[in-house]
Amino acid sequence: MELPPTVISEIPEAECREILLRASLGRLGCALDNQPYVVPIYFVCEPGCIYVFSTYGQKIEWMRANPRVCLQVDEVTGASQWASVIANGRFQELVEPQFSEEREHARELLEARQRWWLTALAERRIRVPDGQVAPLFFAIRIDSVTGIRSTSA
Amino acid sequence: MELPPTVISEIPEAECREILLRASLGRLGCALDNQPYVVPIYFVCEPGCIYVFSTYGQKIEWMRANPRVCLQVDEVTGASQWASVIANGRFQELVEPQFSEEREHARELLEARQRWWLTALAERRIRVPDGQVAPLFFAIRIDSVTGIRSTSA
Repeated sequence: MELPPTVISEIPEAECREILLRASLGRLGCALDNQPYVVPIYFVCEPGCIYVFSTYGQKIEWMRANPRVCLQVDEVTGASQWASVIANGRFQELVEPQFSEEREHARELLEARQRWWLTALAERRIRVPDGQVAPLFFAIRIDSVTGIRSTSA
Repeated sequence: MELPPTVISEIPEAECREILLRASLGRLGCALDNQPYVVPIYFVCEPGCIYVFSTYGQKIEWMRANPRVCLQVDEVTGASQWASVIANGRFQELVEPQFSEEREHARELLEARQRWWLTALAERRIRVPDGQVAPLFFAIRIDSVTGIRSTSA
Protein backbone atom coordinates (compact mmCIF):
# COMPACT_ATOMS: atom_id res chain seq x y z
CA MET A 1 0.00 0.00 0.00
CA GLU A 2 1.73 3.19 -1.16
CA LEU A 3 1.86 6.29 0.95
CA PRO A 4 -0.61 8.88 -0.19
CA PRO A 5 0.54 12.01 -2.03
CA THR A 6 -2.19 13.93 -0.26
CA VAL A 7 -2.10 15.73 3.05
CA ILE A 8 -5.26 16.08 5.10
CA SER A 9 -5.38 18.74 7.78
CA GLU A 10 -7.92 20.23 10.11
CA ILE A 11 -9.27 23.65 9.21
CA PRO A 12 -9.13 26.29 11.97
CA GLU A 13 -12.54 27.31 13.23
CA ALA A 14 -12.31 30.89 11.95
CA GLU A 15 -11.60 29.60 8.46
CA CYS A 16 -14.46 27.09 8.67
CA ARG A 17 -16.76 30.01 9.37
CA GLU A 18 -15.36 31.91 6.35
CA ILE A 19 -16.08 28.90 4.13
CA LEU A 20 -19.67 28.83 5.41
CA LEU A 21 -20.05 32.56 4.78
CA ARG A 22 -19.18 32.24 1.10
CA ALA A 23 -21.07 28.97 0.52
CA SER A 24 -24.57 28.83 -0.89
CA LEU A 25 -25.18 25.10 -1.36
CA GLY A 26 -24.96 22.51 1.40
CA ARG A 27 -26.42 19.25 2.60
CA LEU A 28 -28.67 19.45 5.61
CA GLY A 29 -29.02 16.45 7.88
CA CYS A 30 -31.85 16.05 10.32
CA ALA A 31 -33.02 13.06 12.34
CA LEU A 32 -36.26 11.67 13.70
CA ASP A 33 -36.40 8.59 15.92
CA ASN A 34 -32.73 8.12 15.03
CA GLN A 35 -33.47 7.85 11.30
CA PRO A 36 -31.24 10.39 9.50
CA TYR A 37 -32.44 12.36 6.48
CA VAL A 38 -30.18 14.39 4.17
CA VAL A 39 -31.28 16.98 1.62
CA PRO A 40 -29.43 19.52 -0.50
CA ILE A 41 -30.31 23.12 0.44
CA TYR A 42 -29.45 26.59 -0.73
CA PHE A 43 -28.86 29.15 1.99
CA VAL A 44 -27.28 32.43 2.94
CA CYS A 45 -24.93 32.55 5.88
CA GLU A 46 -24.32 35.32 8.37
CA PRO A 47 -22.01 34.97 11.34
CA GLY A 48 -23.45 32.31 13.64
CA CYS A 49 -26.54 31.66 11.56
CA ILE A 50 -27.78 30.44 8.19
CA TYR A 51 -31.08 31.35 6.58
CA VAL A 52 -33.15 29.10 4.36
CA PHE A 53 -36.32 29.48 2.34
CA SER A 54 -38.50 26.42 2.09
CA THR A 55 -42.01 25.16 1.85
CA TYR A 56 -43.57 22.58 4.11
CA GLY A 57 -42.28 19.05 3.68
CA GLN A 58 -40.49 16.19 5.40
CA LYS A 59 -37.46 18.18 6.53
CA ILE A 60 -39.62 20.87 8.13
CA GLU A 61 -41.79 18.27 9.83
CA TRP A 62 -38.72 16.51 11.18
CA MET A 63 -36.91 19.65 12.33
CA ARG A 64 -40.01 20.87 14.14
CA ALA A 65 -39.96 17.58 16.05
CA ASN A 66 -36.18 17.57 16.55
CA PRO A 67 -34.32 20.86 15.97
CA ARG A 68 -30.83 19.34 16.06
CA VAL A 69 -29.29 19.54 12.59
CA CYS A 70 -25.98 19.15 10.81
CA LEU A 71 -25.02 21.19 7.73
CA GLN A 72 -22.22 19.90 5.51
CA VAL A 73 -20.56 22.17 2.93
CA ASP A 74 -17.63 21.48 0.66
CA GLU A 75 -15.37 23.32 -1.75
CA VAL A 76 -13.67 21.19 -4.39
CA THR A 77 -10.93 22.83 -6.42
CA GLY A 78 -9.27 19.69 -7.74
CA ALA A 79 -9.14 15.90 -7.40
CA SER A 80 -6.96 16.08 -4.30
CA GLN A 81 -7.80 19.64 -3.29
CA TRP A 82 -10.97 19.97 -1.32
CA ALA A 83 -12.34 21.27 1.96
CA SER A 84 -15.32 19.94 3.90
CA VAL A 85 -16.96 21.85 6.74
CA ILE A 86 -19.60 20.59 9.16
CA ALA A 87 -21.76 22.91 11.25
CA ASN A 88 -23.89 21.59 14.07
CA GLY A 89 -26.79 23.75 15.01
CA ARG A 90 -30.43 24.16 15.85
CA PHE A 91 -33.47 24.75 13.68
CA GLN A 92 -35.43 27.92 14.40
CA GLU A 93 -38.50 28.52 12.31
CA LEU A 94 -38.95 32.25 11.69
CA VAL A 95 -42.60 32.47 12.62
CA GLU A 96 -44.60 35.67 12.92
CA PRO A 97 -44.97 37.79 14.90
CA GLN A 98 -42.14 36.61 17.16
CA PHE A 99 -39.49 36.63 14.43
CA SER A 100 -41.04 39.13 12.01
CA GLU A 101 -37.94 41.34 11.83
CA GLU A 102 -35.52 38.48 11.35
CA ARG A 103 -37.82 36.84 8.84
CA GLU A 104 -37.85 40.04 6.78
CA HIS A 105 -34.07 40.23 7.03
CA ALA A 106 -33.77 36.61 5.83
CA ARG A 107 -36.22 37.25 3.00
CA GLU A 108 -34.17 40.21 1.76
CA LEU A 109 -30.94 38.24 1.86
CA LEU A 110 -32.47 35.28 0.08
CA GLU A 111 -34.39 37.29 -2.48
CA ALA A 112 -31.10 38.47 -3.95
CA ARG A 113 -30.63 34.87 -5.02
CA GLN A 114 -33.91 34.33 -6.74
CA ARG A 115 -33.35 30.76 -7.79
CA TRP A 116 -33.88 29.60 -4.19
CA TRP A 117 -37.43 30.84 -4.44
CA LEU A 118 -37.96 29.43 -7.87
CA THR A 119 -36.77 25.97 -6.98
CA ALA A 120 -38.73 25.72 -3.78
CA LEU A 121 -41.86 27.13 -5.33
CA ALA A 122 -41.61 24.87 -8.36
CA GLU A 123 -41.27 21.86 -6.12
CA ARG A 124 -44.21 22.95 -4.04
CA ARG A 125 -46.38 23.46 -7.10
CA ILE A 126 -46.18 19.86 -8.23
CA ARG A 127 -46.87 18.59 -4.75
CA VAL A 128 -49.78 20.90 -3.99
CA PRO A 129 -51.90 20.78 -7.12
CA ASP A 130 -54.17 23.61 -6.01
CA GLY A 131 -51.21 25.95 -6.27
CA GLN A 132 -51.30 27.13 -2.67
CA VAL A 133 -47.85 28.10 -1.54
CA ALA A 134 -46.97 29.08 2.02
CA PRO A 135 -43.42 30.47 2.03
CA LEU A 136 -41.55 29.45 5.12
CA PHE A 137 -38.26 30.76 6.43
CA PHE A 138 -36.02 29.17 8.95
CA ALA A 139 -32.68 29.80 10.60
CA ILE A 140 -30.04 27.37 11.77
CA ARG A 141 -28.32 28.74 14.89
CA ILE A 142 -24.78 27.43 14.58
CA ASP A 143 -23.36 25.86 17.75
CA SER A 144 -20.06 24.50 16.44
CA VAL A 145 -18.07 24.15 13.22
CA THR A 146 -15.28 21.80 12.22
CA GLY A 147 -13.57 21.07 8.93
CA ILE A 148 -10.83 19.18 7.13
CA ARG A 149 -9.04 19.88 3.88
CA SER A 150 -6.91 17.93 1.48
CA THR A 151 -3.94 19.43 -0.35
CA SER A 152 -1.40 17.91 -2.70
CA ALA A 153 1.81 17.04 -0.88
CA MET B 1 -44.22 36.36 -7.02
CA GLU B 2 -43.62 35.14 -10.57
CA LEU B 3 -44.23 31.59 -11.62
CA PRO B 4 -41.04 29.58 -11.85
CA PRO B 5 -39.62 28.53 -15.23
CA THR B 6 -38.55 25.27 -13.67
CA VAL B 7 -40.41 21.99 -13.41
CA ILE B 8 -39.68 19.60 -10.55
CA SER B 9 -40.75 15.99 -10.88
CA GLU B 10 -40.31 12.78 -9.01
CA ILE B 11 -37.83 10.29 -10.42
CA PRO B 12 -39.13 6.72 -10.90
CA GLU B 13 -37.49 4.24 -8.55
CA ALA B 14 -35.71 2.30 -11.32
CA GLU B 15 -34.10 5.52 -12.52
CA CYS B 16 -33.11 6.49 -8.97
CA ARG B 17 -31.25 3.20 -8.76
CA GLU B 18 -29.50 3.89 -12.08
CA ILE B 19 -28.33 7.26 -10.77
CA LEU B 20 -26.91 5.54 -7.67
CA LEU B 21 -25.15 2.94 -9.83
CA ARG B 22 -23.23 5.57 -11.79
CA ALA B 23 -22.51 7.83 -8.80
CA SER B 24 -19.29 7.75 -6.83
CA LEU B 25 -19.64 10.72 -4.46
CA GLY B 26 -22.46 11.15 -1.98
CA ARG B 27 -23.30 12.54 1.43
CA LEU B 28 -23.89 10.00 4.13
CA GLY B 29 -26.11 10.91 7.06
CA CYS B 30 -26.08 8.98 10.30
CA ALA B 31 -27.58 9.78 13.70
CA LEU B 32 -26.84 9.13 17.34
CA ASP B 33 -29.18 10.16 20.15
CA ASN B 34 -31.09 12.07 17.46
CA GLN B 35 -28.06 14.23 16.57
CA PRO B 36 -27.52 13.97 12.80
CA TYR B 37 -24.04 13.85 11.25
CA VAL B 38 -23.33 14.29 7.53
CA VAL B 39 -20.08 13.45 5.74
CA PRO B 40 -19.06 13.26 2.09
CA ILE B 41 -18.12 9.73 1.02
CA TYR B 42 -16.86 7.98 -2.07
CA PHE B 43 -18.43 4.64 -2.83
CA VAL B 44 -19.18 2.02 -5.44
CA CYS B 45 -22.75 0.91 -5.92
CA GLU B 46 -24.11 -2.47 -6.92
CA PRO B 47 -27.81 -3.26 -7.11
CA GLY B 48 -29.25 -2.98 -3.60
CA CYS B 49 -25.97 -2.15 -1.93
CA ILE B 50 -23.15 0.37 -1.74
CA TYR B 51 -19.58 -0.33 -0.63
CA VAL B 52 -17.31 2.07 1.20
CA PHE B 53 -13.72 2.03 2.38
CA SER B 54 -13.01 3.90 5.58
CA THR B 55 -10.90 3.98 8.68
CA TYR B 56 -12.22 4.20 12.19
CA GLY B 57 -13.76 7.52 13.15
CA GLN B 58 -16.95 9.22 14.26
CA LYS B 59 -19.16 7.93 11.44
CA ILE B 60 -18.10 4.33 12.07
CA GLU B 61 -18.64 4.72 15.80
CA TRP B 62 -22.09 6.17 15.22
CA MET B 63 -23.17 3.62 12.62
CA ARG B 64 -22.09 0.75 14.85
CA ALA B 65 -24.39 2.19 17.51
CA ASN B 66 -27.21 2.99 15.06
CA PRO B 67 -27.07 1.33 11.62
CA ARG B 68 -29.85 3.44 10.08
CA VAL B 69 -28.36 5.74 7.45
CA CYS B 70 -29.37 8.03 4.59
CA LEU B 71 -27.26 8.51 1.46
CA GLN B 72 -27.89 11.57 -0.70
CA VAL B 73 -26.51 11.81 -4.23
CA ASP B 74 -27.01 14.50 -6.85
CA GLU B 75 -26.26 15.13 -10.49
CA VAL B 76 -26.11 18.77 -11.54
CA THR B 77 -25.98 19.49 -15.25
CA GLY B 78 -27.04 23.13 -15.15
CA ALA B 79 -28.44 25.86 -12.92
CA SER B 80 -31.99 24.54 -13.25
CA GLN B 81 -31.14 21.02 -14.31
CA TRP B 82 -30.36 18.70 -11.46
CA ALA B 83 -31.42 15.42 -9.89
CA SER B 84 -31.22 14.45 -6.23
CA VAL B 85 -31.62 10.89 -4.99
CA ILE B 86 -31.97 9.69 -1.41
CA ALA B 87 -31.36 6.10 -0.36
CA ASN B 88 -32.33 4.86 3.07
CA GLY B 89 -30.49 1.82 4.26
CA ARG B 90 -28.58 0.00 6.95
CA PHE B 91 -24.92 -0.09 7.81
CA GLN B 92 -23.23 -3.49 7.67
CA GLU B 93 -19.59 -3.61 8.60
CA LEU B 94 -17.80 -6.24 6.51
CA VAL B 95 -16.01 -8.00 9.34
CA GLU B 96 -14.02 -11.19 9.02
CA PRO B 97 -14.55 -14.06 8.86
CA GLN B 98 -18.32 -13.65 8.51
CA PHE B 99 -18.10 -11.32 5.51
CA SER B 100 -14.68 -12.28 4.13
CA GLU B 101 -15.93 -12.97 0.62
CA GLU B 102 -17.99 -9.84 0.36
CA ARG B 103 -15.19 -7.79 1.89
CA GLU B 104 -12.81 -9.03 -0.80
CA HIS B 105 -15.41 -8.23 -3.46
CA ALA B 106 -15.79 -4.70 -2.08
CA ARG B 107 -12.03 -4.26 -1.90
CA GLU B 108 -11.65 -5.21 -5.57
CA LEU B 109 -14.39 -2.84 -6.66
CA LEU B 110 -12.99 0.02 -4.60
CA GLU B 111 -9.36 -0.58 -5.49
CA ALA B 112 -10.14 0.30 -9.08
CA ARG B 113 -10.72 3.80 -7.78
CA GLN B 114 -7.55 4.24 -5.86
CA ARG B 115 -8.17 7.73 -4.58
CA TRP B 116 -10.68 6.38 -2.06
CA TRP B 117 -7.84 4.56 -0.40
CA LEU B 118 -5.48 7.45 -0.64
CA THR B 119 -7.85 9.95 0.85
CA ALA B 120 -8.91 7.73 3.73
CA LEU B 121 -5.38 6.68 4.50
CA ALA B 122 -4.03 10.20 4.35
CA GLU B 123 -6.71 11.34 6.76
CA ARG B 124 -5.96 8.47 9.08
CA ARG B 125 -2.24 9.18 9.07
CA ILE B 126 -2.64 12.65 10.55
CA ARG B 127 -5.01 11.39 13.20
CA VAL B 128 -3.01 8.36 14.27
CA PRO B 129 0.53 9.65 14.63
CA ASP B 130 2.01 6.18 15.01
CA GLY B 131 0.97 5.42 11.44
CA GLN B 132 -1.20 2.42 12.30
CA VAL B 133 -3.93 2.03 9.74
CA ALA B 134 -6.69 -0.51 10.01
CA PRO B 135 -8.60 -0.55 6.70
CA LEU B 136 -12.28 -1.03 7.23
CA PHE B 137 -14.97 -1.85 4.70
CA PHE B 138 -18.67 -1.47 5.09
CA ALA B 139 -21.82 -1.92 3.07
CA ILE B 140 -25.06 0.01 3.10
CA ARG B 141 -27.98 -2.35 2.39
CA ILE B 142 -30.44 -0.15 0.54
CA ASP B 143 -34.04 -0.38 1.77
CA SER B 144 -35.66 2.36 -0.31
CA VAL B 145 -34.80 5.06 -2.84
CA THR B 146 -36.58 8.24 -3.87
CA GLY B 147 -35.58 11.18 -6.02
CA ILE B 148 -36.63 14.45 -7.58
CA ARG B 149 -35.33 16.30 -10.60
CA SER B 150 -35.54 19.80 -11.97
CA THR B 151 -35.77 20.59 -15.66
CA SER B 152 -36.23 23.84 -17.53
CA ALA B 153 -39.80 24.39 -18.52
